[in-house]
Amino acid sequence: MITGKNYIGYAQSANGDTTYHTFNPKENAKNAPTFYEATTQEIDSAVSLAHKAFSSFRKTSGAQRAQFLKAIANEIEALGDTLFTTYMSETGLPEGRAKGECGRTLGQLRMFAALVQNEDWRNPTISGESQELKQLLIPLGPVVVFGASNFPLAYSTAGGDTASALAAGCPVIVKSHPMHAGTGELVANAIVKAAKDTGMPEGVFSNLNSAGIEVGVQLVKHPQVKAVGFTGSIKGGRALYDLASQRAEPIPVFAEMGSINPVIITQNALENRSAEIAQTYADSITLGVGQFCTNPGLILGVASPQMAEFVNDLGAKTASIDPYCMLHPNIHNAFESNGEDVLSQNEIQLVASYQGDTEPAFAKAKIATVPGAVFLKNTKLHQEVFGPFSLVVQCKDEAELLDIIEQLEGQLTGTIIAQEEDYASLSPIIERLQDRVGRIVFNGVPTGVAVVDAMTHGGPYPASTDSRFTAVGNQSIKRWVRPFSYQGFPKELLPEFLK
Amino acid sequence: MITGKNYIGYAQSANGDTTYHTFNPKENAKNAPTFYEATTQEIDSAVSLAHKAFSSFRKTSGAQRAQFLKAIANEIEALGDTLFTTYMSETGLPEGRAKGECGRTLGQLRMFAALVQNEDWRNPTISGESQELKQLLIPLGPVVVFGASNFPLAYSTAGGDTASALAAGCPVIVKSHPMHAGTGELVANAIVKAAKDTGMPEGVFSNLNSAGIEVGVQLVKHPQVKAVGFTGSIKGGRALYDLASQRAEPIPVFAEMGSINPVIITQNALENRSAEIAQTYADSITLGVGQFCTNPGLILGVASPQMAEFVNDLGAKTASIDPYCMLHPNIHNAFESNGEDVLSQNEIQLVASYQGDTEPAFAKAKIATVPGAVFLKNTKLHQEVFGPFSLVVQCKDEAELLDIIEQLEGQLTGTIIAQEEDYASLSPIIERLQDRVGRIVFNGVPTGVAVVDAMTHGGPYPASTDSRFTAVGNQSIKRWVRPFSYQGFPKELLPEFLK
Repeated sequence: MITGKNYIGYAQSANGDTTYHTFNPKENAKNAPTFYEATTQEIDSAVSLAHKAFSSFRKTSGAQRAQFLKAIANEIEALGDTLFTTYMSETGLPEGRAKGECGRTLGQLRMFAALVQNEDWRNPTISGESQELKQLLIPLGPVVVFGASNFPLAYSTAGGDTASALAAGCPVIVKSHPMHAGTGELVANAIVKAAKDTGMPEGVFSNLNSAGIEVGVQLVKHPQVKAVGFTGSIKGGRALYDLASQRAEPIPVFAEMGSINPVIITQNALENRSAEIAQTYADSITLGVGQFCTNPGLILGVASPQMAEFVNDLGAKTASIDPYCMLHPNIHNAFESNGEDVLSQNEIQLVASYQGDTEPAFAKAKIATVPGAVFLKNTKLHQEVFGPFSLVVQCKDEAELLDIIEQLEGQLTGTIIAQEEDYASLSPIIERLQDRVGRIVFNGVPTGVAVVDAMTHGGPYPASTDSRFTAVGNQSIKRWVRPFSYQGFPKELLPEFLK
Repeated sequence: MITGKNYIGYAQSANGDTTYHTFNPKENAKNAPTFYEATTQEIDSAVSLAHKAFSSFRKTSGAQRAQFLKAIANEIEALGDTLFTTYMSETGLPEGRAKGECGRTLGQLRMFAALVQNEDWRNPTISGESQELKQLLIPLGPVVVFGASNFPLAYSTAGGDTASALAAGCPVIVKSHPMHAGTGELVANAIVKAAKDTGMPEGVFSNLNSAGIEVGVQLVKHPQVKAVGFTGSIKGGRALYDLASQRAEPIPVFAEMGSINPVIITQNALENRSAEIAQTYADSITLGVGQFCTNPGLILGVASPQMAEFVNDLGAKTASIDPYCMLHPNIHNAFESNGEDVLSQNEIQLVASYQGDTEPAFAKAKIATVPGAVFLKNTKLHQEVFGPFSLVVQCKDEAELLDIIEQLEGQLTGTIIAQEEDYASLSPIIERLQDRVGRIVFNGVPTGVAVVDAMTHGGPYPASTDSRFTAVGNQSIKRWVRPFSYQGFPKELLPEFLK
């Protein structure tokens, strides 16, 4: 069923000699299919087909693209257990997660189909005496989408970036994530079938395999590529951003990158419901083995006896949760070494870590703590440890807490856990936090990103490369479009919906 | 009246030793006031004040900022003849232009005041069961605005970039354009007075002088600067874009840069109204001595006897227009040398140039022509000659014309001059042109940019550094804001208008 080949438009192709395999972290064994890295020629063909497809794809009506998106959703849905089995074999994630993420993916495709069913999303605007000027949003051109390691479906091959770009009228070339290339091929198959069935031009979609960085580098540098979507590490996202901004014609890169998602807990909250907060956060920190970009990696509060007790309780509760395998041994190794790196810093204290034996790629959740003054001075402690790890920073007073918030790097989310009696004094925290994040959660957890219009999934650098956009929800389509004005046009020459 | 000093917040300051003068190109003499370049310390102070001002400025209501913007407009209006006299002495432009540009500037300030009078511009959005998520647009932080040489009022100190950034709640630091530093100081005075009178925080605005590039470089690299607006040359805009994208924390740069604004004329149009088109274009090419970013620098058509006649007629009409002085001897020198550079290329033919004697900084308008095949091969011919210069490209057939459009660099505008009988066959031209420009003008001239909602003043690189935004009209405020979401917030803690 899985060929390991690239999709160059409608054709499967495997001209290269470099091959790789995906890995089952739960069984600690590589999966059978052999994947073929795309060659320079295959990359060129995919981009060239996308460039050609753009000239007709941009002219399709929103209703036609809606049909295409709905057909993709239906084809993915029809994959059924084949998809889930492959997904699980390439990630170690449980069936419930596979099905949940698939539902989210189908929902996103159908949401963008509904958005572009008519042309209102183009924000048609008419101005001037005698309606001289007519403006609308038009697509940028071919978009390269990099699949995310931690969302093989919802932020990869047919995920949010692909769905929003196709909805906008931009052909998409996916650089498949090597950890789940089989899942990627199944979804690519579904997209290609849907494209053929709904009469889309060949090249509207291609799927390129690669285990290294070279394919991605060539794609981002290609003159006919007009924008890039990426979800992953700061290092990876920044490298692509740099390549794109150094081009003769710079292009926009929307990279959603790392975040430690600070959580501020007030003294009143600890005095009223410390045990409940500890349980909620032990669950949030270990949810999906901590492999979410909104995982709470940093907890901030003012030092007190209640805080000391909370830290121990959070540690005990987190360390008591059964380990589970991470997505890939490489991700597990990074979790271990990044954790060790943080724990080797001065004046940091490991509060608790799971104590039993585990299987090879299974992560032992950890809680550590550090005084505010130490955290302020040592930016190594601000770095993300991707996985079930959280650092509790105990500040000497609220002034130090405010200083820390002000000096934090940009974040996807910030969370405030507080009591009603705190409301009157929360403004300084809210204002400083608002300046550093894309979303503030009140008395909740940052994990869980609703796919709705009012969602901001993005934030000041390095949470994203451009805080003016969001990666989730209908508004994420704005990343791939630009305003365009017709001036003094005769009706006959305007698009139907502008007449 | 003009001190030559910088405005660092509310204080005038001249700590540096580097000085310069502005120049009256009409009288060929330098103006009296001495201007003091901002020092590194003055730059730091201005940015530090802006950073501090942001924490309170961002909390002002839209209605308060509207008061501020209207007060700026009133203060500029009150400058009256002092402003016009200084403007004319620093640009050589006539009084009518000074007054017209002033009116545009006041109009823009009042337009943004009207926009932010209530908070609808923030696009408040509510989603989720029990309205969990509430999203709105918030300001990015301090913005650096580079004054444009060719619009001392409308795209400089209190021009569109400044007005839109202040409207959004972003403090502004202006890097004053050295050619009209006196005009800049008068306007800066007006802004500072308005800021004081309407109770704005000190640092909401600063004005820095500089004749070289160092002040601009330091501003763009400053960690507390969060965005940049620029209008000027490709070389200048690209240098700032590169600096901004190489920062540890990259920031958005909206640079509106050069454009040759292609005009396509059909054979039918030439057969019907060649003389009228020639007159319209001779006027558009020489309007404001060709010193507009939307000046038509390139005219395209299929070779024919009528085209040959049109070229000669356009040349004769353009060359018969009395020369007038350019903004500055440096701009005149660049016009001369860039024109010579283009005219020295192979197979290019000078059709006509003004033949009389002129005063030193006065520009002699020129029309040249070249075969399509030569233009296609030689990208030197695609470069902007800023001033009253236009190149007519005579293509061997429509296929070559389409090739040329497809291979053009990004442009602010494209224009189509056609007859009704052409309509049925214009699609290939319109589609290719749409891909290369921000605005298509039909049977008109590209010069003249209406300040209205449906205006797109921007376009694919190098017309701008980010085609997803416009520099003119209400929508230009989107350059300086980002979406932000409140999740699960109690009503008491939400901004008034989100409750």
